Amino acid sequence: MLKIGIINVTGYAGAELARLLYNHPEARITSVTGRSEAGKPLAAVFPHLACYDLTVEPEIAGSVDFVFSALPHAASAQAVAPLVRAGVSVVDLSVDFRWRNAETYVEWYGNSHPAPDLLPRAAYGLTELNRDAVRASKLIANPGCYPESALLALAPAVKAGSIGPDIIVDSKSGVSGAGRGLALQTHFGEAAESVSAYALEGHFHLPEMVQELARMWPQAEADLEAGQPPSPKVTFTPHLIPMTRGILSTCYAPLMPGRLPAGEAAGPAVRDLYHEFYAGEPFVKVVDAPPATKHTRGNNMCLVYPTVDTRTERLVVVSVLDNLVKGAAGQAIQNMNAMLGLPETLGLDAPAVYP
Amino acid sequence: MLKIGIINVTGYAGAELARLLYNHPEARITSVTGRSEAGKPLAAVFPHLACYDLTVEPEIAGSVDFVFSALPHAASAQAVAPLVRAGVSVVDLSVDFRWRNAETYVEWYGNSHPAPDLLPRAAYGLTELNRDAVRASKLIANPGCYPESALLALAPAVKAGSIGPDIIVDSKSGVSGAGRGLALQTHFGEAAESVSAYALEGHFHLPEMVQELARMWPQAEADLEAGQPPSPKVTFTPHLIPMTRGILSTCYAPLMPGRLPAGEAAGPAVRDLYHEFYAGEPFVKVVDAPPATKHTRGNNMCLVYPTVDTRTERLVVVSVLDNLVKGAAGQAIQNMNAMLGLPETLGLDAPAVYP
Amino acid sequence: MLKIGIINVTGYAGAELARLLYNHPEARITSVTGRSEAGKPLAAVFPHLACYDLTVEPEIAGSVDFVFSALPHAASAQAVAPLVRAGVSVVDLSVDFRWRNAETYVEWYGNSHPAPDLLPRAAYGLTELNRDAVRASKLIANPGCYPESALLALAPAVKAGSIGPDIIVDSKSGVSGAGRGLALQTHFGEAAESVSAYALEGHFHLPEMVQELARMWPQAEADLEAGQPPSPKVTFTPHLIPMTRGILSTCYAPLMPGRLPAGEAAGPAVRDLYHEFYAGEPFVKVVDAPPATKHTRGNNMCLVYPTVDTRTERLVVVSVLDNLVKGAAGQAIQNMNAMLGLPETLGLDAPAVYP
Amino acid sequence: MLKIGIINVTGYAGAELARLLYNHPEARITSVTGRSEAGKPLAAVFPHLACYDLTVEPEIAGSVDFVFSALPHAASAQAVAPLVRAGVSVVDLSVDFRWRNAETYVEWYGNSHPAPDLLPRAAYGLTELNRDAVRASKLIANPGCYPESALLALAPAVKAGSIGPDIIVDSKSGVSGAGRGLALQTHFGEAAESVSAYALEGHFHLPEMVQELARMWPQAEADLEAGQPPSPKVTFTPHLIPMTRGILSTCYAPLMPGRLPAGEAAGPAVRDLYHEFYAGEPFVKVVDAPPATKHTRGNNMCLVYPTVDTRTERLVVVSVLDNLVKGAAGQAIQNMNAMLGLPETLGLDAPAVYP
Repeated sequence: MLKIGIINVTGYAGAELARLLYNHPEARITSVTGRSEAGKPLAAVFPHLACYDLTVEPEIAGSVDFVFSALPHAASAQAVAPLVRAGVSVVDLSVDFRWRNAETYVEWYGNSHPAPDLLPRAAYGLTELNRDAVRASKLIANPGCYPESALLALAPAVKAGSIGPDIIVDSKSGVSGAGRGLALQTHFGEAAESVSAYALEGHFHLPEMVQELARMWPQAEADLEAGQPPSPKVTFTPHLIPMTRGILSTCYAPLMPGRLPAGEAAGPAVRDLYHEFYAGEPFVKVVDAPPATKHTRGNNMCLVYPTVDTRTERLVVVSVLDNLVKGAAGQAIQNMNAMLGLPETLGLDAPAVYP
Repeated sequence: MLKIGIINVTGYAGAELARLLYNHPEARITSVTGRSEAGKPLAAVFPHLACYDLTVEPEIAGSVDFVFSALPHAASAQAVAPLVRAGVSVVDLSVDFRWRNAETYVEWYGNSHPAPDLLPRAAYGLTELNRDAVRASKLIANPGCYPESALLALAPAVKAGSIGPDIIVDSKSGVSGAGRGLALQTHFGEAAESVSAYALEGHFHLPEMVQELARMWPQAEADLEAGQPPSPKVTFTPHLIPMTRGILSTCYAPLMPGRLPAGEAAGPAVRDLYHEFYAGEPFVKVVDAPPATKHTRGNNMCLVYPTVDTRTERLVVVSVLDNLVKGAAGQAIQNMNAMLGLPETLGLDAPAVYP
Repeated sequence: MLKIGIINVTGYAGAELARLLYNHPEARITSVTGRSEAGKPLAAVFPHLACYDLTVEPEIAGSVDFVFSALPHAASAQAVAPLVRAGVSVVDLSVDFRWRNAETYVEWYGNSHPAPDLLPRAAYGLTELNRDAVRASKLIANPGCYPESALLALAPAVKAGSIGPDIIVDSKSGVSGAGRGLALQTHFGEAAESVSAYALEGHFHLPEMVQELARMWPQAEADLEAGQPPSPKVTFTPHLIPMTRGILSTCYAPLMPGRLPAGEAAGPAVRDLYHEFYAGEPFVKVVDAPPATKHTRGNNMCLVYPTVDTRTERLVVVSVLDNLVKGAAGQAIQNMNAMLGLPETLGLDAPAVYP
Repeated sequence: MLKIGIINVTGYAGAELARLLYNHPEARITSVTGRSEAGKPLAAVFPHLACYDLTVEPEIAGSVDFVFSALPHAASAQAVAPLVRAGVSVVDLSVDFRWRNAETYVEWYGNSHPAPDLLPRAAYGLTELNRDAVRASKLIANPGCYPESALLALAPAVKAGSIGPDIIVDSKSGVSGAGRGLALQTHFGEAAESVSAYALEGHFHLPEMVQELARMWPQAEADLEAGQPPSPKVTFTPHLIPMTRGILSTCYAPLMPGRLPAGEAAGPAVRDLYHEFYAGEPFVKVVDAPPATKHTRGNNMCLVYPTVDTRTERLVVVSVLDNLVKGAAGQAIQNMNAMLGLPETLGLDAPAVYP
């Protein structure tokens, strides 16, 4: 049995790691940390985790084989850097190891990166799109929930050269994505029965989307050599939706001429392309009708529905996932499984909790 | 006092007309109709309308000065045609008189239009954008809720020539927009805690958006003379959101080069443009921060927030309104006020019911 | 036009006063206060109140004719005491002037009452049950939302001597009742899709219920003279429900033998009793089927459905109201109208915002 | 591996059985039936069950070892009677085998019971309170969701003789309890943001509560011999709450004098009594603070919080559970495990899906 530590179990992502790992046959949580709740039994903080006999501690206690960090940015890199250097395998759920370029960090946060030397050792943990690197690494940058939904929605079309670079990602997220910390916009009276857009000036998940789309862009290397900027021009708008869990992203891009059949055949053709791309993937399912976030509530599935607006020659892809599972804790466990050579579905094969 | 008739008071739009007209100082409802509930007191169908002493009747009874029809398409044209021909002023809330071209009707519904001779007499009732025609007409095609939100969001930029024709409208609607009729997708267990996209193959509000955007497009007439198709290429995706009332539309279009200042000045410049365009309008307010549907719940306001994604040179406009008020019954009463030469705000000046 | 001041406009009750007074034909708000938001335009704090051109001030500014206080307990008495002494008419929405006995204050809050000398001048503002006192007073203790719902549900039966003193009030409240201040239990992720009971050790609305029930109890005076404690033995359990507005209280009490007909006639008989009791009241409606809180959303109605469980000889009464309107701001305005000799419905006659 | 059949998989309880059994290590579903959806792949009806390669059939196909029936009353008895007579083990989720007295059936439904001869062979499947009978039976009447919540809340106090018979059960249920069939009261626009009481004239779960409370009542046998009616006088009021899953029941009963310590010691004493009663039970947890339904979402736990209102000498017990799991499908699987001599927790040990 693997001994697992969770850093910052007291947020929603940390608690979700504990929920999901309870049913993992090869792993056992032996240490959980939290800042404000240190000293309390885990069951006192989260009644649904009364199945654990653990106390929230200020730091990881005892020896552990594997660590998940669910701390906010900067704090997370500071906490995991010594562990990584000591050889512990780590999946980091913060943004800290997602951006390959430490300058991006300065640009968005104003501060320098706490551990830039570790960036080359980190693999971007979108397992389906980066499996070899994940398997070979001991430090995983777990994807952001929004990029996860957008990249899984767009990758097959991008890699097939089916779409041009003018991409729009319009995402709708449940409120748990904003975390367990108190804020007016997540106060029930404000969030219930209301929808709003936010971060229109630029959400911190945008550079992650652009970086990963650029990496998979056809001829990206040739473009870069020729001194061209990375191809995709992405506008990303996140919205807050009055529900607890789930993200639906609607992605738009112009079709490249001649790559797909014209007219009514375009939709089925693009679905074929997607089916083939994700064949054999246990956690990405291409569906033949628009999906609802409810179909993935509580489990690790991402459902993808690609179609073509034949009036305007645009690809439209709708993807849904649970922001706390496939968008965070479930993806992190999938990465752990891949890193350890275990079946990726281990501990992650429960159906969604519908309705 | 004006004597008002409401045809099909038993749906959400019909009931909302009755709610709002209760506080109208110049109008009094004297007859309400409904098919399935005919013979019942209105208070028995809708406890919140117990303030009325009216019985639901199969047909408009007695003489009325003004009629609102909230019937579905086809049935509505059939019901109001004889009234219009008899000289009664009518606001029709169905799609029946929105499309100027009767062929569009055949294309979308398979059947021919029930009263094509009346199409030339109908004015499109988006008062802010078509005020003169509304004032001069006795038959108003009240806008669809989605087109209302998109057209108010885009009109200032379109008319100023600021944007190109590649337009995406991504709309999020509360469930009441799907009506009071029972269906699985509006069953509480299915709709609560879930988001989904629908009508990806083409929603019947799309031709209305395209038609009205084309009409306001710069050089639209010159293009048409030159045998060009109408300019805007619109992709429209509606989404069902787990709340009762409200629509938020996020609209995207590429900036035309050179029309707005570059960089950080673009956002304020486009807001200035919008402020000027809607100056003096009582029901459209340009706001300086992203709005929430909650800020318009139950009242006739549309809040519009335009901004520029300077990374991609795109205009992004977010608009919010209550689909049953500004998107239906409130807009209909505003049209009635305009038709009758009354102040447009009469009976419509209550603040939103927040929180 | 009456000049109105609102102390602490920045909570939900204060904002609701501003919303409702906007449509009052005889009153105009001239000054609003708030602690944390002082200096900001009211429209910046609440976008739905952009119809007002007012700035939030630290203290009531200029001369006002009438003041509403929506401050928390203790702070409210301190703020209004000088106004009351200066002769300004005041409706206080806090608990401060509800308890006739200053010792109850010490018992529940540990501190002494800030202005015990004013207690005898205060009238309990449940207008329907205490109209003469309200009309004669210049200081009104506006009822708590829970007591309002329970007292309107029970008064007819209590006054008719139909029920015994073993009373249970089981109330279900929307989350806005907990205010606009941030707390974990009103965080969206915690409150949505969940129900919980709270304050089982004793909610501060309990003594108010007991006091007012005791006052209306048959032979209460005789009992008190005989040295008996006030009759009603009330268990009150409040619950938090995942919705924004509304309270439903389910009240239970044993029937006194022989006061109502036996068997199936009991239900109609008790409804007759209630209809007669509330005949002519504009804001309390006795209904013939179980009501939903949605039927009162945003307006000043209380719907009451009394029935008899003939299997156990118990009275069961269900009442619904909007906690922010009839349970707070609407009731306060109704009191203002009564104090000033205006029709009680002035500014309060809008139908509920259903659905 | 046990071969399982589910009759009427197409409702919420049937689908929940399929969801939970997917992770059961000793059971495999081999046949599922449904009336309206017969012929469709299960994955087409329920996208979250795409993990199954099953087709919905009109009747159970092939040989099965164990059958769950999730049909409505009457239809269920008709469907399972031949299976029971053929020796198949059955858990029936309808009301059909819950009432020991076939006359109760006539009284509530007007029709005679479809298989009265099987009533003596049925065991009432509230495992915690009736374990020996469940283990010994091959036909289980799975409890109703409301009785489950009330009986688990009241049993320790009833059996200890701590309370008198004047019992009130005030229950709050999520909307999924009303099933997947379409109805106006479960239409999103009607149910969202609203609370209502229903079935005030008598809910069909009432006789089940009374029967089972009477069976456990101290001296019940002596009373019956003496010709007395069963003791408990239960008033039960169900309420519809705007959430999908979960039941919270608040139960009230007068304390019997002298059985619990007086004053502040009463609450801890009653919690000790409950802790002892449920010691070792994996699915009933006595908690020390009022629980929320969210703490049991999606899993098989029932949390019970007993306390004493010392002002009125009443026991107040709050219980929470997921109506589709511990209130239906989870309890059914727990019964299956008990019938087969398996650990009761098999396939049922996932933590709740919070938040």
